[in-house]
Amino acid sequence: MVLDLNSDLGEGFGIWPLTDDDALLDIVTSANVACGFHAGDPTVLRRVTERAAQRGVAVGAQVGYRDLAGFGRRFIDVDPAELGNDVIYQIGALDGFARIAGTRVRYVKPHGALYNAVAHHTAQAEAVVEAVGTYDASLPILGLPGSELLRLADAAGLPTVAEAFADRAYTPEGRLVSRREPGAVVHDADAVVARSVRMATEGAVTAIDGTEVETRPRSLCLHGDTAGAVDLARRIRAGLLDAGVELTPFA
Amino acid sequence: MVLDLNSDLGEGFGIWPLTDDDALLDIVTSANVACGFHAGDPTVLRRVTERAAQRGVAVGAQVGYRDLAGFGRRFIDVDPAELGNDVIYQIGALDGFARIAGTRVRYVKPHGALYNAVAHHTAQAEAVVEAVGTYDASLPILGLPGSELLRLADAAGLPTVAEAFADRAYTPEGRLVSRREPGAVVHDADAVVARSVRMATEGAVTAIDGTEVETRPRSLCLHGDTAGAVDLARRIRAGLLDAGVELTPFA
Amino acid sequence: MVLDLNSDLGEGFGIWPLTDDDALLDIVTSANVACGFHAGDPTVLRRVTERAAQRGVAVGAQVGYRDLAGFGRRFIDVDPAELGNDVIYQIGALDGFARIAGTRVRYVKPHGALYNAVAHHTAQAEAVVEAVGTYDASLPILGLPGSELLRLADAAGLPTVAEAFADRAYTPEGRLVSRREPGAVVHDADAVVARSVRMATEGAVTAIDGTEVETRPRSLCLHGDTAGAVDLARRIRAGLLDAGVELTPFA
Amino acid sequence: MVLDLNSDLGEGFGIWPLTDDDALLDIVTSANVACGFHAGDPTVLRRVTERAAQRGVAVGAQVGYRDLAGFGRRFIDVDPAELGNDVIYQIGALDGFARIAGTRVRYVKPHGALYNAVAHHTAQAEAVVEAVGTYDASLPILGLPGSELLRLADAAGLPTVAEAFADRAYTPEGRLVSRREPGAVVHDADAVVARSVRMATEGAVTAIDGTEVETRPRSLCLHGDTAGAVDLARRIRAGLLDAGVELTPFA
Repeated sequence: MVLDLNSDLGEGFGIWPLTDDDALLDIVTSANVACGFHAGDPTVLRRVTERAAQRGVAVGAQVGYRDLAGFGRRFIDVDPAELGNDVIYQIGALDGFARIAGTRVRYVKPHGALYNAVAHHTAQAEAVVEAVGTYDASLPILGLPGSELLRLADAAGLPTVAEAFADRAYTPEGRLVSRREPGAVVHDADAVVARSVRMATEGAVTAIDGTEVETRPRSLCLHGDTAGAVDLARRIRAGLLDAGVELTPFA
Repeated sequence: MVLDLNSDLGEGFGIWPLTDDDALLDIVTSANVACGFHAGDPTVLRRVTERAAQRGVAVGAQVGYRDLAGFGRRFIDVDPAELGNDVIYQIGALDGFARIAGTRVRYVKPHGALYNAVAHHTAQAEAVVEAVGTYDASLPILGLPGSELLRLADAAGLPTVAEAFADRAYTPEGRLVSRREPGAVVHDADAVVARSVRMATEGAVTAIDGTEVETRPRSLCLHGDTAGAVDLARRIRAGLLDAGVELTPFA
Repeated sequence: MVLDLNSDLGEGFGIWPLTDDDALLDIVTSANVACGFHAGDPTVLRRVTERAAQRGVAVGAQVGYRDLAGFGRRFIDVDPAELGNDVIYQIGALDGFARIAGTRVRYVKPHGALYNAVAHHTAQAEAVVEAVGTYDASLPILGLPGSELLRLADAAGLPTVAEAFADRAYTPEGRLVSRREPGAVVHDADAVVARSVRMATEGAVTAIDGTEVETRPRSLCLHGDTAGAVDLARRIRAGLLDAGVELTPFA
Repeated sequence: MVLDLNSDLGEGFGIWPLTDDDALLDIVTSANVACGFHAGDPTVLRRVTERAAQRGVAVGAQVGYRDLAGFGRRFIDVDPAELGNDVIYQIGALDGFARIAGTRVRYVKPHGALYNAVAHHTAQAEAVVEAVGTYDASLPILGLPGSELLRLADAAGLPTVAEAFADRAYTPEGRLVSRREPGAVVHDADAVVARSVRMATEGAVTAIDGTEVETRPRSLCLHGDTAGAVDLARRIRAGLLDAGVELTPFA
């Protein structure tokens, strides 16, 4: 009964804060740190990596499209070769801060529209896999279960981790119910905590049709973009610890 | 009789080229590669570092202010702590590409307005020195002779290299004559080649008042921003080789 | 026999030049001026609009995605409402320079990936049409014949101008042959000039299958992104004038 | 007894909000709207100008250095000619949104480090004055009393408005006490309200040495960058209305 909790951090830019990095660093075991392309300036990167290192939180490179104005949430049809180089640039920049904090970038997770694109866009998924493999073939990629990204990373021999979502409904096949469908998001906090605990302790979750789906995620993705989300993340952590789940980074 | 030739490379951005990187890589022994803040996108960085590694040209991080619109040529009164983090970010990003090319960032040289600022702006010079020392205290800083930057780097125990300029006039004290003064720039190509050779072989240059100044630079800065400048750089290289000077990276 | 010649201008940024604006201003009657999102800084915009105004060249807003790194050549799945606001911002910024040069923005033409997207992407095409209509419903939109953009602009009551391309092959239906097809581009300079003249004087062009297609464009798009392209543009202009075609802005 | 209340608005960017624009639009009579260079994306600009127009709040162009990462708070030694063009670009862009909202940009106020620079930096102050005068010589400049900016604007025949600060201590000469001096900022809310009312009704403020200084500002600058600041701004407005002061835009 071991689980990792990951969340997006370091997503401020200049004067504009966004994520409550200090609160999240007390909750998660893996920090997906923005690398400057969709958010995250160098001062933010340094602060978050240093504090993560101090707390034993694993530092992951949250790589995104070059799009501060759109926060990396808009698909960009970037040439795959350029995308790969953008990914290497971002990992390298964050790794510099990780090294001076006495650690290293431990994994890579795509952000926003890139996360969604590489679920199915083969050329962009390949570009990300090649970039990570070129940078360090021992770096795990954290991503969506069933995504093209993880399939290609597996095929390339890279370690992969498929994350789960405690607040998302699952199909009987173990896929996420699309956000466009009714019931896609579980809003009841107690239910979200209970689902998290059950995934970790029983390796199962109840699908949207009531059937049981086997799932034993190594990492659970927690939202941290609102005060309410941070509170819920804190409750999930407490619920997991109460249930005897050991919380450790996957990487 | 050993000398390094350094020049700025990788200063295109997106569709816009600038430096003739391939030509310069056949001339210099050290490439000051732009890191993305004043110029240089990830695809440019990758291309230049790979080709530099193939040719045995040392890769240096040419760090600048975050100012694409001004090409890093405008002084920015950035907070020193932020400047230091900007420098680490740039070195780390370039180092990622250097590592995948089988090499490493071998030195750091400030660009443009930052180069000029850290000649005298103590707080910014300290920020650069601290950033480099924090990233890797064995990394040499390449800079202006007599600058605050090199003075502070020396004091901090960092290796330093004071570069010389074959096309600039010197004062009897061995400082550069300000560009605002008449005669500051030597325009005659033969004279520039001859001065380069004499610095390397005799350790001397004739100052603007006719006196002899002792100078035995380890690195000579070549301009590469125009076709004429690249031609002159090529002639300087040929002249040095003809005179029996060994051209090797300082780092 | 009246024709407009349009070309992209003002596509430098900071230290990086691109288009030979002075040469093009002696050739075209309408200047598609970049507005700062894919290229074009304020100093470039001012220079080009002033010179265009002096020569009686009509100033058009060449609006693009916010993407300097990709030169606006990458499709961005931007929210249509935001895209519309981006378009208004760009037109307004250029119009400021046009006004101080004693003229106004006379038309709008999308650039690069946006040009291609609004040929078929209804939501983005609508956003551009609404933006232009909101800014000034008398402003013509210059675009691709048969595009969703021009169809929606027509439907909204905006003036539209469908441009022709002298160096592109046409289908028997009068559409452009896709660049992925063989023979899509006419490479012979004499043929390009002859086709330009025939379009203007006879209202016809020979399609890729040898049939005759009726086309009487009000504006012809000239490339200006290489020295060779500028030379060809100059020849097209000369050929048209020799054939008695009057060259005047459509707007 | 007429006074204008101005405050900075529209200072979010993309996903990152900053100013509470809706709250401030119920308090101020003039909105200094960020124009995209230090903050403010096109969607923010449109929203703020539309709501300002609906409420009869005057729209001013809050022009700044091109520096999103530094929020325009870092002096940039930009070439004056380029600075002037940057200013025109920003005014034009905002004016586009103002026009479609049925109003116009009514005045110009420099932001942050530019505000501070043009208090004494003659070349940059001249550039701003020339830019505003070129764009529309009837546009007032709102700025610091005694600044080089207002002196040069006066000399150039531009309307000027010197703003006052209710929470800042004044010297016996009517200048602001430097923030580096003790007592520079008045922290007591009641005192700030009382000083505002007294400036408007009696044309006087008590200087830091206890002497009375004559001051009858046409505009009072209110801070809006924190929730506490917005509350204080609301109290100042209420206090002024209670004292019978008429609140109207100066422009």
